[in-house]
Amino acid sequence: MRESTGRALFLISVFVLLAFGSSLAESKDAAALRAADQQWEKAVAAKDLDRSVAVCASNGSMLPPNAPIATGPAAIRKVFESFFALPGFKLTWSPDVAEAAKSGDLGYTRGTYQLSYNDASGQPVTDKGKYVTVWKKQADGSWKVAADIFNSDGAPAK
Amino acid sequence: MRESTGRALFLISVFVLLAFGSSLAESKDAAALRAADQQWEKAVAAKDLDRSVAVCASNGSMLPPNAPIATGPAAIRKVFESFFALPGFKLTWSPDVAEAAKSGDLGYTRGTYQLSYNDASGQPVTDKGKYVTVWKKQADGSWKVAADIFNSDGAPAK
Repeated sequence: MRESTGRALFLISVFVLLAFGSSLAESKDAAALRAADQQWEKAVAAKDLDRSVAVCASNGSMLPPNAPIATGPAAIRKVFESFFALPGFKLTWSPDVAEAAKSGDLGYTRGTYQLSYNDASGQPVTDKGKYVTVWKKQADGSWKVAADIFNSDGAPAK
Repeated sequence: MRESTGRALFLISVFVLLAFGSSLAESKDAAALRAADQQWEKAVAAKDLDRSVAVCASNGSMLPPNAPIATGPAAIRKVFESFFALPGFKLTWSPDVAEAAKSGDLGYTRGTYQLSYNDASGQPVTDKGKYVTVWKKQADGSWKVAADIFNSDGAPAK
């Protein structure tokens, strides 16, 4: 075999392996995103403030309705504190879509949530809506929240 | 030079080129995302229904507040129709963050919007808020919207 042919075959092999590897990584990353999304949901459902905040990247942002953007752990902690302070607070969600870039460094989940709590007069309030969470893979291989935003399906309060 | 050393150097060169190439692609993609975001804003500001819808991927979703998720061109068209039907409708936005995956197939923009219109009694309503748009690169190299979601900074209407 001539050296140039050998190199060409070697080059083809490298690209086939890279393409196959990135395809495998994509579905593995999508599953990891789904798992990260649901681990966050469990932390929030358990009103675990530390764990809820720790899922967000150090420069991550939460964009809750009826409030300005909250960037960084201190601001995000305040968002969760205000949620968890609601009497009878109960929040669950699940992803309908989990998709990662081929490079496995960025991805997003999209899904729906169900929220209930009691208002100032003790009346139960229920709400359902939708969310998009952008995730970034960290140096340690974990996925953390770069941006999280949600809104209600329901008509605004009158 | 022994063949094994040659192959090792060749392999290193391939990875250096791939790493350098993807780094260049990343900032180019981020700039392209910012441009796509602002081209969409111009189409919406001009109340151009066709162009506003065409920026969304064929399976893309809009997640507007106070309404269910809208997926696909027909549903997204209805969202824009309802916006553009508001008397005195004016919507502008700009991205604070534009970030693409290293592989250049997925990215997001995050920013703030300013909205104004006249309500049923003709009174001007102004609103400001924030958004996250997830973008996917299409086969033709263009970026299209995979998911777009926004919400208001202001307190809900009483």
